[in-house]
Amino acid sequence: MVKMAVIGCGYWGPNLIRNFHGLPDVELKSIADLDRARLDHVGKLYPHVQRTTDYREIIANPEIDAVVVATPVSTHFSIGREVLEAGKHLFVEKPMAASSEQCRLLNDLAADRELQIMVGHTFCFTPAVRKIRELIQMGELGDIFYVDITRVNLGLFQQDVNVVWDLAPHDIAMLNYLFEATPEVVSATGRSYVQQGIEDVAFLTLEYPGRQIAHIHVSWLDPNKIRKSTFVGSRKMLVYDDVSSLEKIRVYDKGVDVLPHYDNFGEFQLSYRFGDIFIPRVEQVEPLKIETAHFVACIQGRDLPLSSGQHGLQVVEVLEKACLSIRQDGQPYHLEYSEA
Amino acid sequence: MVKMAVIGCGYWGPNLIRNFHGLPDVELKSIADLDRARLDHVGKLYPHVQRTTDYREIIANPEIDAVVVATPVSTHFSIGREVLEAGKHLFVEKPMAASSEQCRLLNDLAADRELQIMVGHTFCFTPAVRKIRELIQMGELGDIFYVDITRVNLGLFQQDVNVVWDLAPHDIAMLNYLFEATPEVVSATGRSYVQQGIEDVAFLTLEYPGRQIAHIHVSWLDPNKIRKSTFVGSRKMLVYDDVSSLEKIRVYDKGVDVLPHYDNFGEFQLSYRFGDIFIPRVEQVEPLKIETAHFVACIQGRDLPLSSGQHGLQVVEVLEKACLSIRQDGQPYHLEYSEA
Amino acid sequence: MVKMAVIGCGYWGPNLIRNFHGLPDVELKSIADLDRARLDHVGKLYPHVQRTTDYREIIANPEIDAVVVATPVSTHFSIGREVLEAGKHLFVEKPMAASSEQCRLLNDLAADRELQIMVGHTFCFTPAVRKIRELIQMGELGDIFYVDITRVNLGLFQQDVNVVWDLAPHDIAMLNYLFEATPEVVSATGRSYVQQGIEDVAFLTLEYPGRQIAHIHVSWLDPNKIRKSTFVGSRKMLVYDDVSSLEKIRVYDKGVDVLPHYDNFGEFQLSYRFGDIFIPRVEQVEPLKIETAHFVACIQGRDLPLSSGQHGLQVVEVLEKACLSIRQDGQPYHLEYSEA
Amino acid sequence: MVKMAVIGCGYWGPNLIRNFHGLPDVELKSIADLDRARLDHVGKLYPHVQRTTDYREIIANPEIDAVVVATPVSTHFSIGREVLEAGKHLFVEKPMAASSEQCRLLNDLAADRELQIMVGHTFCFTPAVRKIRELIQMGELGDIFYVDITRVNLGLFQQDVNVVWDLAPHDIAMLNYLFEATPEVVSATGRSYVQQGIEDVAFLTLEYPGRQIAHIHVSWLDPNKIRKSTFVGSRKMLVYDDVSSLEKIRVYDKGVDVLPHYDNFGEFQLSYRFGDIFIPRVEQVEPLKIETAHFVACIQGRDLPLSSGQHGLQVVEVLEKACLSIRQDGQPYHLEYSEA
Repeated sequence: MVKMAVIGCGYWGPNLIRNFHGLPDVELKSIADLDRARLDHVGKLYPHVQRTTDYREIIANPEIDAVVVATPVSTHFSIGREVLEAGKHLFVEKPMAASSEQCRLLNDLAADRELQIMVGHTFCFTPAVRKIRELIQMGELGDIFYVDITRVNLGLFQQDVNVVWDLAPHDIAMLNYLFEATPEVVSATGRSYVQQGIEDVAFLTLEYPGRQIAHIHVSWLDPNKIRKSTFVGSRKMLVYDDVSSLEKIRVYDKGVDVLPHYDNFGEFQLSYRFGDIFIPRVEQVEPLKIETAHFVACIQGRDLPLSSGQHGLQVVEVLEKACLSIRQDGQPYHLEYSEA
Repeated sequence: MVKMAVIGCGYWGPNLIRNFHGLPDVELKSIADLDRARLDHVGKLYPHVQRTTDYREIIANPEIDAVVVATPVSTHFSIGREVLEAGKHLFVEKPMAASSEQCRLLNDLAADRELQIMVGHTFCFTPAVRKIRELIQMGELGDIFYVDITRVNLGLFQQDVNVVWDLAPHDIAMLNYLFEATPEVVSATGRSYVQQGIEDVAFLTLEYPGRQIAHIHVSWLDPNKIRKSTFVGSRKMLVYDDVSSLEKIRVYDKGVDVLPHYDNFGEFQLSYRFGDIFIPRVEQVEPLKIETAHFVACIQGRDLPLSSGQHGLQVVEVLEKACLSIRQDGQPYHLEYSEA
Repeated sequence: MVKMAVIGCGYWGPNLIRNFHGLPDVELKSIADLDRARLDHVGKLYPHVQRTTDYREIIANPEIDAVVVATPVSTHFSIGREVLEAGKHLFVEKPMAASSEQCRLLNDLAADRELQIMVGHTFCFTPAVRKIRELIQMGELGDIFYVDITRVNLGLFQQDVNVVWDLAPHDIAMLNYLFEATPEVVSATGRSYVQQGIEDVAFLTLEYPGRQIAHIHVSWLDPNKIRKSTFVGSRKMLVYDDVSSLEKIRVYDKGVDVLPHYDNFGEFQLSYRFGDIFIPRVEQVEPLKIETAHFVACIQGRDLPLSSGQHGLQVVEVLEKACLSIRQDGQPYHLEYSEA
Repeated sequence: MVKMAVIGCGYWGPNLIRNFHGLPDVELKSIADLDRARLDHVGKLYPHVQRTTDYREIIANPEIDAVVVATPVSTHFSIGREVLEAGKHLFVEKPMAASSEQCRLLNDLAADRELQIMVGHTFCFTPAVRKIRELIQMGELGDIFYVDITRVNLGLFQQDVNVVWDLAPHDIAMLNYLFEATPEVVSATGRSYVQQGIEDVAFLTLEYPGRQIAHIHVSWLDPNKIRKSTFVGSRKMLVYDDVSSLEKIRVYDKGVDVLPHYDNFGEFQLSYRFGDIFIPRVEQVEPLKIETAHFVACIQGRDLPLSSGQHGLQVVEVLEKACLSIRQDGQPYHLEYSEA
């Protein structure tokens, strides 16, 4: 039985509490939030779980094996460090920390103490994304030329991070997971309309090894909620629409073939393929259920973290460079991933 | 009665022929195409119209008042110059010519000879775009923060121009018309996947006076045909979906208000508005019908060209700089519009 | 403080428990289910609420003021009678009972004892339906000619009632509420494909006073979940799509006007109107929250039941006659509503 | 070379003219319409085709081999008879004639003279319908339980026929073609809202041999144009959406299996299947092109009419009985198809 605590009962915390609470191998001991009212509101559903407004009670509790941190990004590092220094495993929400430097320090600490770090990159555990990975690995799409991602909606505006730090971690984590690679170059442009100095609209371009391009559009200023990724491959094309409840993935047997060249330029021709469309059934499981169970399995030594501290660091490296690029009108940045 | 001729019976030419032929003030005298079979195929529907495979017969015909040029972009300049030098008015398909230099030469020539030039920027004549312009000018959207445009589909791949020259003229012409302004800065990234050296996917960022940003995504490599423009304003948001047949424009009474600041940071708040959606009825008229009638009105001195040679030049200036930016990894280019 | 109990923890019961539990004026004392495992599973979230597999403990408990019955339809009457005979108020799920005779007996009993009966016709409390009622009453649609309703999906197949008893109560209750009237004639056809003798597909035609027709298509055998009602009025048309999360109601300024007759038949003309479309914002509140609060207000004498026992009876009368009509190949049945 | 003429240049006539004119084996000699202006408008595109306001000139012209009749339904019989009596083949628009008696007389006449009759039931030539037929015949759907069809829009209101005669022929012809059978029983209800005595909304129920039910909803009073047919089979389900341009057919691998019965009623269970969705590519050919070419092949003895006079008669028999049923509140009518 793994004994756990959750720090942070805001927007996302309750989902983590509900899922960890429902796991057979877990005993949820304690939850913490600075806001007493919020803490009691969330805690009412779990009358047997201790509540505290001082997270240090959790750090100090020798009974607790692992701690979940679902607080604002700016606090991830300091709380995460205390968790690890107290010899507890760490589950930290995404993005992992406010800088790559902080991520590396956390990773070093965990390595020293032989503790697990897992970052809450939910999309690595989403059945639709796993289905896409399966289709890619089976060669169904051929070589992937580029991916175009739109992740926009109205709000929720954040005050401590911009829209890149808020929304793009999902896409970067998903792409790194799907391609089993990290981008080599990133450039980005962005603007802040509503809050001075905090970008609410941004466009990122990521270049993966082998000329694969991913283009990501994130915005807090769009009338519609759109979460759409279009994968253009040499054999087929795939659209992943995460807003659709039943038809998340569509595989298009469409494409263009370059015919062998002829001497005569006039004979040069492209041949189009327009074929069937296939909508595979995707298992309807809450990704967080898979994710939380995975963390417990890692603690118990039955698995290795998929969205590890290393994975979390790689995402933050891209975020950092993207924001530098925004400050310099889209200047491309090369990424050299430091050892964790 | 204006006597006209059309050079080029390819993809778009027949639409111009059909529309000019249907105008009450026009007598269509002649059509030309290099390809005899194509010429006869198109000409069969208009048995009384002369056909020629040599467009110079049209240039030489003193009876003809105005000439429509619907040939590949690379030939616009040389044919257009001959048309103007022969003292005939010129309607040239978009983009106006292969370089801004060529556009300027055509404009100078037309000014010298007191002839009209009009460029086939259809979107300036599209009822939905005119409705949007009306809504913007009435202040319905408030200040426009940014516009996000997606114009993608599978093919048609061109061999002489890239996807920027092929698709983006529509959007640039539309934006210049809607904003009654021209962009000050442009940056772009692009890639060529299918044909070596000819970009088939590109992303453009245009900066208009007053911080307005337009982001344009063009692609020949997308499984779905999408023509969608999202206008985000300070009061309302508008989505223009040109693929929808009956619901092209949606106005969202949605937005975010920045409340006056408080001393206490914790009191800082944004207030969201989520309101009704309004789908105005848009007149169902073929834009080309309005456009061709407008050209005749200009020739007859009853109107001034909306999509004039100056307008056509301004679009080409953006295309040129966007392609330079692509060659330099997205380097922003400042635009200084030369006098025509 | 109203002291309540819920009998039945199956598909719908937990929603009632959650909502009554959340009301400030309510103390949820006890829940019952025949199935011990189910009872414990549901009860775990409410550790302070008593559990029993014998609902008669609830009937016998003098502390309890009101009982919610969410059991199979066939048991509504017998349990409901016991509840009322024990002097407790009754909230019973829809349809109210297995026959109009049973409904009348319950209503008589409640009247005798001066107790409240409320039937769980959720659609009378749904914000979108209330918005439609408001639009109708404001005359926005003009006279309503007919309503066409589709309520289909794959399963859940019931074993004790057919698809008419399962799905149509929603629509009949909604229509009676919207029109403030009850149908005068009903006819229906139906077929049973999957389970012998239990119709899984049916089509009902209801005739309301004043020639208003409602046509209802219910099915357990459709690949898509559709909940769509089209209201055709003399002024405007309205489509209510309950599956859409954000655009439930669309009002079309469309219609046809009969012009005054001319002598000459050839001059007879209809004039079409094609106008704007309007999507009003609908408040996002769980209907069950409004419904459960309303029941408590009725018990406390602050309100009168909207979906009263009389309302519940009127729905069951239509269901009964519709099923008779099905047995006779669609023979129309006239409805004479008995006094409750 | 088959020499042809077309009588009727109204709504549909020009489409027939355009298609027959485009066939290699056809010489279009003459077109007729009572309205001189309409005739000239349509004729302008075909300057070499003779025009007449008196269709009897066509009947009297010994050069003409076959005549296309695209006039109002009430005139189909009298004109069609003259055509056949003059020894010419007959293509008549749907519905074939104003009564089954008239259809039989035309069929008898054609049989006597050894002439071809073909009825313009376009859906028998529509690529999507042919694809559905192929899928049904391959057993892809299993046994078809029922079909639910919606064919509604706003207008065009007819003055000589009701909405059943106007819209339902498409569906009846399609179903007879798909099932290779004719319905045994028909019942229908309908109402007239806009024009006194001419139904503008109707619901038909057709019963085919083997308990297959087809339910058809036709209306001139709906804000949306819907053409949707849902086929529910024992193996799979199929939705045919004729309004969609690129995704006309969707095959759902969904269904419900009745498990073998157990002694214990409680163990009785249904098993649901929720699987992939498949959207087959459908050839994009104008059905009228296939249909007109087929008529010419039949005249030349190379084929037998698919939508023969017998087929046209069977459709009219259903229409007649459906309208009788409407007059009698949905009374079911048995159909006994007379020999043609």
